[in-house]
Amino acid sequence: MTATIHQLSSRRAPSLDPMVQLVAADLNGVNAVILERMQSEVALIPELAGHLIAGGGKRMRPMLTLACARLLDYQGGRHHKLAAAVEFIHTATLLHDDVVDGSGLRRGKRTANIIWGNPASVLVGDFLFSRSFELMVEDGSLKVLRILSRASAVIAEGEVDQLTAQRRVETSEDQYLSIISAKTAALFAAACRIAAVVAERDEPVEEALDAYGRNLGIAFQLVDDAIDYVSDAQTMGKGVGDDFRDGKVTLPVILAHARGDDADRLFWREAMEGRRISDEDLTQATALLERTGAIRDTMARARHYGQRAIDALGAFRGGKAKAALVEAVEFAISRAY
Amino acid sequence: MTATIHQLSSRRAPSLDPMVQLVAADLNGVNAVILERMQSEVALIPELAGHLIAGGGKRMRPMLTLACARLLDYQGGRHHKLAAAVEFIHTATLLHDDVVDGSGLRRGKRTANIIWGNPASVLVGDFLFSRSFELMVEDGSLKVLRILSRASAVIAEGEVDQLTAQRRVETSEDQYLSIISAKTAALFAAACRIAAVVAERDEPVEEALDAYGRNLGIAFQLVDDAIDYVSDAQTMGKGVGDDFRDGKVTLPVILAHARGDDADRLFWREAMEGRRISDEDLTQATALLERTGAIRDTMARARHYGQRAIDALGAFRGGKAKAALVEAVEFAISRAY
Repeated sequence: MTATIHQLSSRRAPSLDPMVQLVAADLNGVNAVILERMQSEVALIPELAGHLIAGGGKRMRPMLTLACARLLDYQGGRHHKLAAAVEFIHTATLLHDDVVDGSGLRRGKRTANIIWGNPASVLVGDFLFSRSFELMVEDGSLKVLRILSRASAVIAEGEVDQLTAQRRVETSEDQYLSIISAKTAALFAAACRIAAVVAERDEPVEEALDAYGRNLGIAFQLVDDAIDYVSDAQTMGKGVGDDFRDGKVTLPVILAHARGDDADRLFWREAMEGRRISDEDLTQATALLERTGAIRDTMARARHYGQRAIDALGAFRGGKAKAALVEAVEFAISRAY
Repeated sequence: MTATIHQLSSRRAPSLDPMVQLVAADLNGVNAVILERMQSEVALIPELAGHLIAGGGKRMRPMLTLACARLLDYQGGRHHKLAAAVEFIHTATLLHDDVVDGSGLRRGKRTANIIWGNPASVLVGDFLFSRSFELMVEDGSLKVLRILSRASAVIAEGEVDQLTAQRRVETSEDQYLSIISAKTAALFAAACRIAAVVAERDEPVEEALDAYGRNLGIAFQLVDDAIDYVSDAQTMGKGVGDDFRDGKVTLPVILAHARGDDADRLFWREAMEGRRISDEDLTQATALLERTGAIRDTMARARHYGQRAIDALGAFRGGKAKAALVEAVEFAISRAY
């Protein structure tokens, strides 16, 4: 692992560009499906869905489906529809998440629930979710349907689990990992795994791509958690300390709480319960995270999962696709710095 | 049509009992699937889902699947899982509806969103929706998946459409029918149609059962709309005038508004905009509905669709199943009186 990471510093910063270039043509196909299939005679649906879908998302999950298909030398076009289905599921969960969290900003823009209200966000999410299953049915693979319906159920379970853990500073690292494995990593895993299904590869290939996506998803989320406390203006659309002020119990908080003394723990409890939301409180939180090494070790955990993602690709032969998938992991991890 | 209706008065009141008795054994099978598959390690999920699923619903939609399968002499057991999938979709939409409408009561009980909050209701709805697709995938019929994913998308479109029409007293009868065709009748139609798929019958049979369910669903909704203004304590868990006080533009209001004079129209506009919510306002509304024949003609419309539902069954041979399905329509229509 260390080698991989050290290697990075000796060349240009890792980026998503190789993956973007690798799948550019395919991604146009996916975007065409997305645009066409988010339409409805009910005008509010494309209006609201378009706000989020056109609104600066990286298309990370569909890109993973496309890049994994490329890794397997898949030559057909089935993955365009399926990658669009994955993006619809993702968009539906974002719409519902913002309602659940009462969020007002995403990617630097006002959220749909603020502009059109919670009811519209809930219902358009339901529409996109249903539409994603229609796309899968058109493709006709029961295996893909199984993978993505299972992933959707797991995501919802993870979200409810997180609701239960909300503001509970005693959440354990295990429980937190199980939550993010469900709510974030399951769709990354499914997005990668379905590429093996369309390319008609065997179970070990499916498993390998699933493991790549799952570990990348966990790494991604952990880095996001760290970024919330260390990012500056460069990082996209998210203010420093949002998680802190919302009382979100993420891994940095779990580690700092577990490693802290009684005074620290009281501070974190009060903070997660919403009684510590000033700028001074955030400064103190950052100091505690620094003193306990919580951010440093959240990043170490992220690198652990990132390395597992990279190693899951071990059996695949080298080439542009593999290099792009590896660099996507390195990019995910490098974002905090 | 008149004959059918007149016939009723000469015997016992129509009831759902024949259908309930017809499918009793199968319904136990469906309930077993429902109970087993609403479980999750995340305890809040079965707790919340159970509140609504065990909470006195009639299981109307799964019963329709079972009764239609019986009409076709289907001998297998696939329909238990699929009827459970239909009930999960229905339950998911109820959970989201109550969030969207901010409802506090359903079937005389406090709603899940009041007890556990909107976030939990949204997410458990998502879980049940995903789980319904998992059940369909286990069954393995792409045709059933197509029918129910399409129905789910149509339901969501209908709900968004209704949101757009909210409190708009100028909503036309056509637009209103298109809304309830989507949000209510589509799932009734799908519940019936999938019975033809599991029984491996041809397209005309599918179409006939679809037409039965669709027309029954429309009749059901129109009678519900009328009941809101005329029911007494007998009718289940719903207070008189709820729709009125919520500003819901239903067919009685559309007819009374269209047939009224300028003063009437002003009254309805104010009422639908939430500026007429007193008991005196409700009394005045009832008087206007009476004077314009709006309730009487909403019921006439309901009987029209009910008769079409019955006639859709014309080609099927008589017997207990057909009699039960016909009486279910008569029951639906008789509820208001």
